[in-house]
Amino acid sequence: MKSLLIKSLLPLLLLSKASCAADSLPSWNDTASKKAIVTFVEKVTKEGSPDFVPVAERIATFDNDGCLWSEQPMYFQAFFIFDRIKQLAPQHPGWKDKEPFASVLKGDIKSALAGGEHALIEMGMATHAGTTTEEFEKIVTDWITTAKHPKTGRLFTEMVFQPMIEVLSYLRANGFKTFIVSGGGIEFMRPWVERVYGIPPEQIIGSSIKTKFEMRDGQPVLVRLPEINFVDDKAGKPVGIQMHIGRRPIAAFGNSDGDLQMLQWTAASKGARFCLYVHHTDAKREFAYDRKSSIGRLDKGLDEAQAKGWTVVDMKNDWKIIYPFEKW
Amino acid sequence: MKSLLIKSLLPLLLLSKASCAADSLPSWNDTASKKAIVTFVEKVTKEGSPDFVPVAERIATFDNDGCLWSEQPMYFQAFFIFDRIKQLAPQHPGWKDKEPFASVLKGDIKSALAGGEHALIEMGMATHAGTTTEEFEKIVTDWITTAKHPKTGRLFTEMVFQPMIEVLSYLRANGFKTFIVSGGGIEFMRPWVERVYGIPPEQIIGSSIKTKFEMRDGQPVLVRLPEINFVDDKAGKPVGIQMHIGRRPIAAFGNSDGDLQMLQWTAASKGARFCLYVHHTDAKREFAYDRKSSIGRLDKGLDEAQAKGWTVVDMKNDWKIIYPFEKW
Repeated sequence: MKSLLIKSLLPLLLLSKASCAADSLPSWNDTASKKAIVTFVEKVTKEGSPDFVPVAERIATFDNDGCLWSEQPMYFQAFFIFDRIKQLAPQHPGWKDKEPFASVLKGDIKSALAGGEHALIEMGMATHAGTTTEEFEKIVTDWITTAKHPKTGRLFTEMVFQPMIEVLSYLRANGFKTFIVSGGGIEFMRPWVERVYGIPPEQIIGSSIKTKFEMRDGQPVLVRLPEINFVDDKAGKPVGIQMHIGRRPIAAFGNSDGDLQMLQWTAASKGARFCLYVHHTDAKREFAYDRKSSIGRLDKGLDEAQAKGWTVVDMKNDWKIIYPFEKW
Repeated sequence: MKSLLIKSLLPLLLLSKASCAADSLPSWNDTASKKAIVTFVEKVTKEGSPDFVPVAERIATFDNDGCLWSEQPMYFQAFFIFDRIKQLAPQHPGWKDKEPFASVLKGDIKSALAGGEHALIEMGMATHAGTTTEEFEKIVTDWITTAKHPKTGRLFTEMVFQPMIEVLSYLRANGFKTFIVSGGGIEFMRPWVERVYGIPPEQIIGSSIKTKFEMRDGQPVLVRLPEINFVDDKAGKPVGIQMHIGRRPIAAFGNSDGDLQMLQWTAASKGARFCLYVHHTDAKREFAYDRKSSIGRLDKGLDEAQAKGWTVVDMKNDWKIIYPFEKW
């Protein structure tokens, strides 16, 4: 009786296990990319397998802009910077005659960005410093829950990639700890990333300005200073990973040349390793760009991915949907 | 029958629950300190209680030197520095005529330290930089598994505080995430802290030097540079906490004035909060020092703890044993 019961249940159990794995990535087409992800996860989690990795070492790192959410026509944090300049303008009457602020206030983003990195840093400092950490958290929270993307009219947090959110969940269900390693501002991400990606603040690595501990009316505060602390991009990404995590990821996900060193750092250690580039190939549902884009350029990285056999996601063909709202 | 069974088991179940809580801290005497810890943990973990804190926000931070292990007659990392100077001396023939290195090589630690902080930083740079992160990890691992304390003849990792290790485990068993926030070197701690305290590398915050990503023979490495990146002490501790964790602890444990700002930062936020100072009062079993010690001075902190009603552990009276080896 007992063995009969087991025999009759066995196919169901097996089916349930298989369909469970398949259902973890429902927004992915059954192409090579999905297979590569599942194959990797299954081999590093199979006890006794030569590729087995203990839970504590299952570290996976994800870029944010262009990897977990869109980044066109410009990084979403840049929209925050411009909105914040407009908001702060009454307190800075000089801005209306001073570039790049004057152009922003006139709505001429192209001219505002003409000053390149220097102008962007100047605007970043002016808009990200001068508050306490708690005040800044509130400013970001207010913005992210109301500001909308100029093309889609959606909240920026709606423009996250459903297939990547499934990868995050799938990895966590398999004992991975998921981290964000982004060139974006660490405190720009923390207020909303946990709700949107399920990644807690202590697993977010990003660029930062310096802060200073102070007593104000007997209450301790951390004041945000207009001084760069760390740039978490390109060669900075492995540095940020070592600083915050202290061990190498076994899987890394990016979409641009800014992620190349993170992927190299991940790929170079011993054992089964997984590197993936999201390639923006879908002009209709999202944006199509790579080697010549000023935002999220993927050029050297694409060559290296091909040479090293890393997984390159073709968004157009690999993803059934891009954004969560397409499900509804 | 069923209700009889429940009735007869009920006292056993209750006893088991109570003794379970009590057994979590077996090396603590039943004094006010132990009661304060247990009371705090019980109220923040009790669902429906006004003091309830969700698991994700149960962050506890611990200083290391003097809080989780001893720090006399000098910080244990200083022994590492001196051993490493002796080890590296053949590659630096000039050291035998150059202070503070010359004094170290002659075994005259007092003179070596006469140069104060400047001398210590110079020695720290000379002994902590110039390797890759992987090489440094191996150097620390080799040292920590062999080097012995001059007074006790024990491995340094044996000189950890058994009662504090019990607090770490007790908090984790209650859904807390435990972090180290130490003035010591982050990469000096990471190679052994997980094994000794059960705290993974990504939950360690410490002082650091800068690192640089480089390709060497086609392999990526992180090279340790002789340049200070961050000093995780005093007002630096809340800064380090915000940088790495991104939210405030609800419990903080320290032993010196170097931890005061961390405790202030923890105490100042809303809700039930817990701050504890380990007071070194046991000259016989460990070391006795506080307001006038050059290592681990506890002066302002002791005043503030008394004024604010923080828990102050009297090692002599609160702890049944100090070190784990006393159990055997």
